[in-house]
Amino acid sequence: MIKRFIVGNPIETKAIQNKPEIETQISLCDLNKAGDSALPLAYQTLSYIDGKLSISLSKKDRVYGLGENVRGINKRGFRYESFCNDDPNHTEEKSSLYGAHNFLVISPLNLGIFVDTPGSVVFDIGFTDIDTMDIEVKSGSYELYLITGDTPLSIIHEFRQLIGPSYVPPKWAFGYGQSRWGYVCSEDMRRVVKCYQDAGLPLDMIYADIDYMERYKDFTIDREAFPDFESLVSELKDQKVRMIPIIDAGVKIEDGYEVYEEGVKQEYFCKDENGENFEVAVWPGSCYLPDMLNDEARRWFGLKYKFLIDKGIEGFWNDMNEPAIFYSKKHLNEVFEAIEDYKGVNLDAQTFFDFVGLVSSTANNMADYQSFYHEYLGQRYRHDEVHNLFGFNMTMGAQEAFNELVPGKRFLMFSRASYIGMHRYGGIWTGDNASFWSHLLMNFKMLPSLNMCGFLYVGADMGGFGSNTSEDLLLRWTALSILTPLMRNHSARGTREQEMYRFPKAVDGFRNLLMARYRLVPYLYSEYMKAVRDSKLMFKPLGFEYELPRLKTSYF
Amino acid sequence: MIKRFIVGNPIETKAIQNKPEIETQISLCDLNKAGDSALPLAYQTLSYIDGKLSISLSKKDRVYGLGENVRGINKRGFRYESFCNDDPNHTEEKSSLYGAHNFLVISPLNLGIFVDTPGSVVFDIGFTDIDTMDIEVKSGSYELYLITGDTPLSIIHEFRQLIGPSYVPPKWAFGYGQSRWGYVCSEDMRRVVKCYQDAGLPLDMIYADIDYMERYKDFTIDREAFPDFESLVSELKDQKVRMIPIIDAGVKIEDGYEVYEEGVKQEYFCKDENGENFEVAVWPGSCYLPDMLNDEARRWFGLKYKFLIDKGIEGFWNDMNEPAIFYSKKHLNEVFEAIEDYKGVNLDAQTFFDFVGLVSSTANNMADYQSFYHEYLGQRYRHDEVHNLFGFNMTMGAQEAFNELVPGKRFLMFSRASYIGMHRYGGIWTGDNASFWSHLLMNFKMLPSLNMCGFLYVGADMGGFGSNTSEDLLLRWTALSILTPLMRNHSARGTREQEMYRFPKAVDGFRNLLMARYRLVPYLYSEYMKAVRDSKLMFKPLGFEYELPRLKTSYF
Repeated sequence: MIKRFIVGNPIETKAIQNKPEIETQISLCDLNKAGDSALPLAYQTLSYIDGKLSISLSKKDRVYGLGENVRGINKRGFRYESFCNDDPNHTEEKSSLYGAHNFLVISPLNLGIFVDTPGSVVFDIGFTDIDTMDIEVKSGSYELYLITGDTPLSIIHEFRQLIGPSYVPPKWAFGYGQSRWGYVCSEDMRRVVKCYQDAGLPLDMIYADIDYMERYKDFTIDREAFPDFESLVSELKDQKVRMIPIIDAGVKIEDGYEVYEEGVKQEYFCKDENGENFEVAVWPGSCYLPDMLNDEARRWFGLKYKFLIDKGIEGFWNDMNEPAIFYSKKHLNEVFEAIEDYKGVNLDAQTFFDFVGLVSSTANNMADYQSFYHEYLGQRYRHDEVHNLFGFNMTMGAQEAFNELVPGKRFLMFSRASYIGMHRYGGIWTGDNASFWSHLLMNFKMLPSLNMCGFLYVGADMGGFGSNTSEDLLLRWTALSILTPLMRNHSARGTREQEMYRFPKAVDGFRNLLMARYRLVPYLYSEYMKAVRDSKLMFKPLGFEYELPRLKTSYF
Repeated sequence: MIKRFIVGNPIETKAIQNKPEIETQISLCDLNKAGDSALPLAYQTLSYIDGKLSISLSKKDRVYGLGENVRGINKRGFRYESFCNDDPNHTEEKSSLYGAHNFLVISPLNLGIFVDTPGSVVFDIGFTDIDTMDIEVKSGSYELYLITGDTPLSIIHEFRQLIGPSYVPPKWAFGYGQSRWGYVCSEDMRRVVKCYQDAGLPLDMIYADIDYMERYKDFTIDREAFPDFESLVSELKDQKVRMIPIIDAGVKIEDGYEVYEEGVKQEYFCKDENGENFEVAVWPGSCYLPDMLNDEARRWFGLKYKFLIDKGIEGFWNDMNEPAIFYSKKHLNEVFEAIEDYKGVNLDAQTFFDFVGLVSSTANNMADYQSFYHEYLGQRYRHDEVHNLFGFNMTMGAQEAFNELVPGKRFLMFSRASYIGMHRYGGIWTGDNASFWSHLLMNFKMLPSLNMCGFLYVGADMGGFGSNTSEDLLLRWTALSILTPLMRNHSARGTREQEMYRFPKAVDGFRNLLMARYRLVPYLYSEYMKAVRDSKLMFKPLGFEYELPRLKTSYF
């Protein structure tokens, strides 16, 4: 059973495709009135105090969900915040990664909760008090969905029907893909593909990171490095290898650059409080951010993908769309001014750390997120109020454009930032992990909670993006990744090269794994389609299918 | 069998207590001459090429050892560097933590290797090539000990006899201790002890972090916050709780401060290339570093502990003795100068990251370690050449002073930085970990390799030092820590308070665990003494006692 509650004056997110026909307009204050026979028993654990939704957890309750987040399958014991965050250090203290996925299931209480709001939500899941979950919505306004059922799976099934069917990629996207930030010219790409072929290792995709663009400008080609881009794409496709370019959220400020000039002219960029375009720096240096929430701007940016589709491209990955901000012009000036105070002074330890912190906290700074605005559904919103919708809307805009440009064709599309609802338009990869064994484990643990939130086309950068991989780690990671729909080996500039053929002694092992993957594709694709059609999971904690062992109330 | 080789002109480290009576002066170039019947078979895997010692690993070989380091019990697959490092981010990419422990055992090859040299050593253990271990000594000079034997345990036993018996703490040091950076006054300490007593939780030690000192000056008391320090110490001791203060390596530059003035007058501080005292900043702000390697300076600094011993103190922990350097005056000036170039410029992404990196790499900078000097065994050495001996000598100096001041009495003493040899003078804690489940696992995996290198009085900051702990994590960590000789709950300023009584719902669980610990103390102490006497391990990988399962040469 699903009940929908409205608290305050919530902003529409488009997460829910099928809103319950009858809206239950019960006041939340009535929630914990025991004995109301119209309400499920599980509601008696709920209370609404000081603006917080509070849930009593029994000793046995486990909390599943929250999509892309650190730590275990059971989220109890820690505090999370939904606020899409470009943070490459996925340590256990991180409360947010790139996605905001506000759905969770408490079991054996068997209560599902979805908090639908585009701003920050804090989930204190037995952190402050092991027996209490507190949910705090920063804006105070949200739609709350409470789902009761007999099992976690039945609750998840109901939720998934609510949010609508997951994105379906083309079948070739179930092949294996190689990526690296650092394929800087056509020859690099040809060499990688050839080395895979020579080693007898199958390959279906090669990814183009930001290197393919001219000065990191979206919808441009660096013609010095990729003079033959179009023929490279078709030559690779002849060998059944698709090239998948990246698209970043920020648009470079550069006179004569069409996308920039159009955006300025049409007023498609996010504005500051004075109505001036808000300047941030990302890969291209100074940029403006397209207002992905504005219908017109979103359609405009989406149709820009045509530039690459016309060159034979059939898939994309959307990046930097939390949106990531290295610095804003305004904030960096403040930093430089503040630095003056530290100069020539005998810094004590605390002052020194303040100085270091001043500089290191320049990126993705909250003050910046509070300094620009969107036009969304006819209203003006400060960015932080609708932050979690940015990546969602960028990806939705692209898919809507694909439908407009090439109706009926399936494009590969996955994104770094996301909000529930985006699962209908694309997959996600789990961002800039590192070549750590603990990140392989995290990848494994994240899969069920991503599926719960509707994200089926998912995978991690196998082998690890940051830091140097090792032969044994890549081999082990491959063994997991042959089971994830998105199977991509990706690594950062400056790290050890981690194409499989770089480890000649392990090539036989890699080949065996890839052969297993390719033999599994019919099965994986069929399971994928069943999960889409039936709102099911591809990855489940064992506890969802098998009865849990009797839990002790304490360890000893 | 132990063979000792001398390469170049090595600096004495004092790691080896019992040098083999007959020195085998074989040239390393002869090592891989097959068929020399005087040499063990295992040597045929060794070669000496381009200044590197290279060892062929078979598919089955595992590599145990290297003491305090990240990753698994089997070190194969990664690259480590022995260079004591104050780095609180113990991620899997870190090649050095706080200790330099250059001993490892390859099994089933059954070859033990100890590289005795006080500077940087890089161990590439199957990282570049999975089947090769390369050892590179930066200075080119070292003593090399090759130990062969029938089993890893027999090799470790021989090595431990070589380096002499491990430090023995007083029996009370096997009790449970509570610590926090943040007990800022006498009342804080009294309250913690009382809360433990009220909760029925045993406590044997309370640690005083840097807060007890006057402006972080070694061998001073902040008399405003601790006016009754002496009576506090004795009052706590009446309750069987010892107070254990911290001692930092840096000495504050402050006119009228006795330690500073004596050190300057006697020329006991490390000098720069011009013979001026080298100025660094650590907790007290500007400091000089006592030359712990200089016999006279070391004795002088060790005898300073008398200030606290006279107040009833019976144990210490030595910190910041890698030595940690927040910044040097010289380098910080360079940073501020360099910042000018970034000001007012439109920073592209790479330039922006260079700017952030410039500031964030100020601490523990190699240029600083190459900028000051020691007087050691009658010679002048640049710090980086003898870096790994600093913490060792600080701790040795303290123990030697204790012997001189109170002959025959056992003091508690453990250190953050260490080198093999220091195990005779004190224990170590494994530094500034964080409240991560992965760090609990790392703590567990580190114990055998620490024991192999002679460090028996060891333990981690249970519950985690940095980041916020959670009830379940602290409970699990306690369950491990009841088995480690050093059992200390320690946390950083600004993090969640993690004394056991802060988690009222888990107090029964904590009490059960502590009771188990205290019941185990006779057993733990007896096992500890046997490990000291017989050069044995308290913590062993199961593979040291049980035959390994047949290993496949690849996973598939």
